[in-house]
Amino acid sequence: MFRMYDLIEKKKNGEELTKEEIEFIVQGYTDGSIYDYQMSAFLMAVYFNGMTKQETFELTMAMEASGDTLDLSEIKGVKVDKHSTGGVGDKTTLVLAPMIAALDVPVAKMSGRGLGHTGGTIDKLEAFPGFLTSLPEETFIQNVNEHKIAVAGQTKNLAPADKKIYALRDATACVNSIPLIASSIMSKKLASGADGICLDVKVGSGAFMKNEADAQCLAKTMVDIGTFANKKVVAVLTNMDEPLGNAVGNTLEVMEAIDSLKGNGPKDLMEVVFALGSQMLLMAGRASSEEEANKLLQSTIDSGAAYDKFKEFVKIQGGNPEDVDHMESLLSAKVVSDVVALKDGYVAKIEAEQIGHASMIMGGGRASKEDDIDLSVGIILRKKVGDFVKANEPIATVYANDSSLCEKAKEEILDSYQFSDTKTQGKPMVIKTIK
Amino acid sequence: MFRMYDLIEKKKNGEELTKEEIEFIVQGYTDGSIYDYQMSAFLMAVYFNGMTKQETFELTMAMEASGDTLDLSEIKGVKVDKHSTGGVGDKTTLVLAPMIAALDVPVAKMSGRGLGHTGGTIDKLEAFPGFLTSLPEETFIQNVNEHKIAVAGQTKNLAPADKKIYALRDATACVNSIPLIASSIMSKKLASGADGICLDVKVGSGAFMKNEADAQCLAKTMVDIGTFANKKVVAVLTNMDEPLGNAVGNTLEVMEAIDSLKGNGPKDLMEVVFALGSQMLLMAGRASSEEEANKLLQSTIDSGAAYDKFKEFVKIQGGNPEDVDHMESLLSAKVVSDVVALKDGYVAKIEAEQIGHASMIMGGGRASKEDDIDLSVGIILRKKVGDFVKANEPIATVYANDSSLCEKAKEEILDSYQFSDTKTQGKPMVIKTIK
Repeated sequence: MFRMYDLIEKKKNGEELTKEEIEFIVQGYTDGSIYDYQMSAFLMAVYFNGMTKQETFELTMAMEASGDTLDLSEIKGVKVDKHSTGGVGDKTTLVLAPMIAALDVPVAKMSGRGLGHTGGTIDKLEAFPGFLTSLPEETFIQNVNEHKIAVAGQTKNLAPADKKIYALRDATACVNSIPLIASSIMSKKLASGADGICLDVKVGSGAFMKNEADAQCLAKTMVDIGTFANKKVVAVLTNMDEPLGNAVGNTLEVMEAIDSLKGNGPKDLMEVVFALGSQMLLMAGRASSEEEANKLLQSTIDSGAAYDKFKEFVKIQGGNPEDVDHMESLLSAKVVSDVVALKDGYVAKIEAEQIGHASMIMGGGRASKEDDIDLSVGIILRKKVGDFVKANEPIATVYANDSSLCEKAKEEILDSYQFSDTKTQGKPMVIKTIK
Repeated sequence: MFRMYDLIEKKKNGEELTKEEIEFIVQGYTDGSIYDYQMSAFLMAVYFNGMTKQETFELTMAMEASGDTLDLSEIKGVKVDKHSTGGVGDKTTLVLAPMIAALDVPVAKMSGRGLGHTGGTIDKLEAFPGFLTSLPEETFIQNVNEHKIAVAGQTKNLAPADKKIYALRDATACVNSIPLIASSIMSKKLASGADGICLDVKVGSGAFMKNEADAQCLAKTMVDIGTFANKKVVAVLTNMDEPLGNAVGNTLEVMEAIDSLKGNGPKDLMEVVFALGSQMLLMAGRASSEEEANKLLQSTIDSGAAYDKFKEFVKIQGGNPEDVDHMESLLSAKVVSDVVALKDGYVAKIEAEQIGHASMIMGGGRASKEDDIDLSVGIILRKKVGDFVKANEPIATVYANDSSLCEKAKEEILDSYQFSDTKTQGKPMVIKTIK
């Protein structure tokens, strides 16, 4: 058939690979007939020479086809999925999912466990005692049909080729290639069976994409893959220069999400929630304009419908809905301590990655897959970019279970804050929408 | 110390690696602590981003240091080695070594076995029954001191890092990178202990370097490595558009070399022999100008001294010197058949690689390391570029041991010849000398 050697050579020389050649590579690497050392050379050649739109699409489809796919056809209505490229303090799904479901649009979300500064969405939901993050497929579909909402971890073997290729990229400094990132995300999303996909592409110093040009290129590549695959895909570029909202850490983020559903959400977080939510309602045909969509979203908060939907969601997945009303009682951090400003000034910048790292070292995130997460540790940012702060005033509060780790986190948080004498204007949260 | 991940990233981003970083990579890959898949990603990044002069030198030295080195200090005089990047019909060493030795300049040559269209120099020398290609180091040095000449296969473990890296490059389409080729050749040559190295860099359709610019870059890179390493290195760019001389095949090439020592050498072969030989005599301090060197070289043929030296060489390495006088009796090919021209015309081109392939399929070369070589098969080209040929006149004679393989070889030879109505001027054999 093909020889991997020739296909490496072809990509190295900047030629376009065919659908059959890409399928050969993905299948061969998944079944072990193509060696790691050949695949890593190939991926490095892709890093340097890129991939055409068609190649990127074929790679995505071949990775999707490498494993199971979810069949959501038994769910009535237009199923809309949401994916974020990841940022510090990103609890958008926890706020958005009940708002969308409260508008009778089905939310059937497969979510992963996170690596890095905090857990993933399903890790955070484990803050509720008894909450089931693993649901049989039938229950998952039944919950969506009856309650419009289900969020669960992957039980099926979705896109195993992506898993294997990602691990290799991660060991060979080949992560930051736009066609490889786009195909990795989209292969899993397409295998998850939604009709429409709303992508939150983070851009800024705290995001994987540091500048707008790269983020836009990634967004466009993913939207193009969706177009080729006959799926509705919208990407929203949102700012990630400082952490999103005020809470970083698992239980703390759930508490902030609940507050947001009560109408007390931080401005930056709610801007992102509304931007993504309005695109999801448009895709689902639930609204015909962004204005209408935004009004509908606001109504779910004003009426308490979204808050009630969140309690209903916790209940049907095995948690106690009363916990939603008294979330603070679940926060078991033993050490609580403030970080105070050293002098007067305006907050000019908060290094999001450092804040994330401070949370992780206290046990709030995983360094490797096997690590346990301490759900109750984390950070509340009391001051954000543009705020004025006086000397000795708290800029953040740390929740820890170990006093020496707490001190380390405090040092890192203080270091992450930069001050100036004049007020800094924050960038707009929603940068661009790409359809 | 270092992490291979970071060093891949550094090379990928086009930064210069330090001596310590390169040593870490070469040592780690040789001892197995760096994985194949990381090394192949690194090598692909080198292919795309290249290496600076300093990096290429450090890579060469680290590969040389990975194994044994030969100590030739007990040999009196300036030891000059010679290396060819490889071409079809290249029997230059067989002619040159006795000429140089006849002028009392020591020739201590380590030679490999060949992969490809024919064997290497030591394979060819096995055409003499009893010839020893493996010599104990003491005998090797004693022969050079007493007789000025020894040619033997590697017994020590020279540059094992190069061996391992080359095999990986060969499996991952990463062979054609100039810093990698240059460091591979030079690491072995430096480990072989000569005082000066004369490099024959072949350029043309039958060579690895297809164009002069690439060949010149490779030559310059190797000369620069030599300069850094305080060794005299000269590179001569020579033409390889058609096979060198008329004979292709092991015993046939030895016969042509003997004929050349008698004064009957083909013009193109002798031009290369004199160009390399004069540089070697200059490096050894045996001549002070190219003119003087050329006269000395010619004298070894005119006086019969080079021919006698060859017989002496065969004798001291275990062969029968009488065989040199009656070489044709050692050619045992059972099938001898002419390839004839289909119509009148001038030979415009001979695809050297196809001629080499025709020899290999008859058993004259190795496809893999374990293959045996049939020393007596091969091809004599009766017409070369610029020659006029009439219909039905022989253009080549095939020596085979299997009549169906003979027919296949004849087809390929006929196909490799191109004709025209007007006489083609061949390119000059010696293109450039780089010191």
